[in-house]
Amino acid sequence: MSLLSKSRRLRETPFTPGVKRNGVKAYTVYNRMLLPTVFESVEADYHHLKNHVQVWDVSCERQVELWGPDASKLMKRLTPRNLDKMQDDQCYYVPVVDENGGMLNDPVAIKHSDDRWWISIADSDLLFWVKGLAIGAGLNVRVIEPDVYPLAVQGPKADDLMARVFGDEVRSIGFFRYKWMRFKDTKFIVARSGYSKQGGYEIYVENEIYAMPLWDALFDAGADLNVRAGCPNLIERVEGGLLSYGNDMTMANTPLECDLGRFCKPAENNDFIGREILEQEIANGPSREVRPITISGDAVTPPTAPWPLFKEGKQVGSVTSAAWSPDFQENIAIGMVETGSWDAGTILDIDTSNGPRQAEVKAEFWSK
Amino acid sequence: MSLLSKSRRLRETPFTPGVKRNGVKAYTVYNRMLLPTVFESVEADYHHLKNHVQVWDVSCERQVELWGPDASKLMKRLTPRNLDKMQDDQCYYVPVVDENGGMLNDPVAIKHSDDRWWISIADSDLLFWVKGLAIGAGLNVRVIEPDVYPLAVQGPKADDLMARVFGDEVRSIGFFRYKWMRFKDTKFIVARSGYSKQGGYEIYVENEIYAMPLWDALFDAGADLNVRAGCPNLIERVEGGLLSYGNDMTMANTPLECDLGRFCKPAENNDFIGREILEQEIANGPSREVRPITISGDAVTPPTAPWPLFKEGKQVGSVTSAAWSPDFQENIAIGMVETGSWDAGTILDIDTSNGPRQAEVKAEFWSK
Repeated sequence: MSLLSKSRRLRETPFTPGVKRNGVKAYTVYNRMLLPTVFESVEADYHHLKNHVQVWDVSCERQVELWGPDASKLMKRLTPRNLDKMQDDQCYYVPVVDENGGMLNDPVAIKHSDDRWWISIADSDLLFWVKGLAIGAGLNVRVIEPDVYPLAVQGPKADDLMARVFGDEVRSIGFFRYKWMRFKDTKFIVARSGYSKQGGYEIYVENEIYAMPLWDALFDAGADLNVRAGCPNLIERVEGGLLSYGNDMTMANTPLECDLGRFCKPAENNDFIGREILEQEIANGPSREVRPITISGDAVTPPTAPWPLFKEGKQVGSVTSAAWSPDFQENIAIGMVETGSWDAGTILDIDTSNGPRQAEVKAEFWSK
Repeated sequence: MSLLSKSRRLRETPFTPGVKRNGVKAYTVYNRMLLPTVFESVEADYHHLKNHVQVWDVSCERQVELWGPDASKLMKRLTPRNLDKMQDDQCYYVPVVDENGGMLNDPVAIKHSDDRWWISIADSDLLFWVKGLAIGAGLNVRVIEPDVYPLAVQGPKADDLMARVFGDEVRSIGFFRYKWMRFKDTKFIVARSGYSKQGGYEIYVENEIYAMPLWDALFDAGADLNVRAGCPNLIERVEGGLLSYGNDMTMANTPLECDLGRFCKPAENNDFIGREILEQEIANGPSREVRPITISGDAVTPPTAPWPLFKEGKQVGSVTSAAWSPDFQENIAIGMVETGSWDAGTILDIDTSNGPRQAEVKAEFWSK
């Protein structure tokens, strides 16, 4: 780790006082906001997340709001995912691609209604793309970043904690569905979603004056549930195969390469950007794809640049995220591997920052 | 300062080995790349910059390339600055604004020719805006981020150091002009520009295999000039009134508010985005504007969020960058102040992180 100089440009969030009070040890910078990365230790945070319940400041998941008569038209230009059957209480994971089919972001779209959407973004200024498109094409829609600060509640005890604060109705929210839930004299969108495989919710906090009261309400209600502050956990997300934009995929990758082909079944009449190129790739199949990978030997230090994968001396892919899994007792990783080498069981060579190792392509990620 | 967790998403640069070897102590994250902030100390770095010569890894100034028949047409949609007389060896500081006249970035445009431009960006994904506009409007131009890693050479001895590496011709490069200069078996754009008031150059290094050889050539040639690794310096830039995008201005500010009115004199036929709103503001004047400000008392800790400025209890502006100046022996700052309170000599109250102080609006920044 290095020292990070702070400035207004790397924004704190309305939950930062809570994060600090709960002993944050390090941050990353995500959409020019501070995102905690460690509280006790990455490993201790991992065990806690899998057994209890955590409150995560994910304010850095900024929202892009599309509001106006052309909002749905614009949404459909952004993504190969078929939005035709999406209902007004649904959240969809939507790959957003450019004219080359390259990933610009992998956000969650929240449909308010046909003329109003939020897009909860990963780490790139998707606002600029959506605004630019709308203005270039002369669409009748207002595109802004609203003042919304998502707070995630994740872990096996998330339902119990949330029910204590929002009432039992919260338990009835379906996966990737949302409800408007009352808190004090306001209400928030509460969705069953989040960047872990442990279950939980994301609360879209509008108006920052409610941020710390909500934080405190969750901690007050959850003392006997062993609630703690947490954050997206590298080990847990690699076990679950949750990709990270900027780490496991960039603008140089198509959604098919990212194993997101199931979200690339566009409606016939959908003229999304990049359609021609993606249709070719759908027909022919991608030439490389994301794979779960194990790395031999003792615990590796997680990569800060891709680690090349070799087959008989020729590079056939790379690993972009890796960590030692305490539960599976091996080095687990996310990589991208070329066609001829991507079958489960294939043994490859890898250059890690801890030296050369063996890598094996796996059939499945570690947890579902 | 806090600890920063590293990952591929926060990219190192081709100069990172040099930066580490030269004792970097802290970074910021800028365009998702590591930008050094401290070598010896902010104050020691400041004195050295004003007396000697420094080599800065500013790879984070990513380039947006516009290449194709409609490149100039697209450039003119981006900015209120009149580009009609710009020559093929010029660099222009160009405010880029959205449909509300809000600043999206304050980059330097480098004109290769009418059909090819680079835009050397501040901290926002301007690529997304430019691509979105081009595609939305159906323009015939390719917009990409090329593999270019700017290296700055700044300080009063910059001319001497650069002449030793690139030959005396480098001395003839005019302010905000550039020449293609030979280095080994390649050549780079070398511009007389940079984010300090001490004079110097920016070298646009294409192809990262030349990065460390150039770094080493500069250090080998400059030992007796006391060359050191450096970085944009908070104290020096506030003395010089160099604004920082994300710190001193955001999308909520117009270029006129940022005192960039001199770059808002568009050609008659230029239909840049936001024209209508900016013309109104040019006619009426902005309601608030950037000002140099001094803060009373002993050294303040630089702000990480705006410090509000008050006049008789009513907020009339805020300070966004501040530092103690060793050369001027006072707290110097950049703020934005409303019309009625922005005259030089106006005394205001300010809430700093070191408690309440007095602030005074100054007529001019400290150095030119």
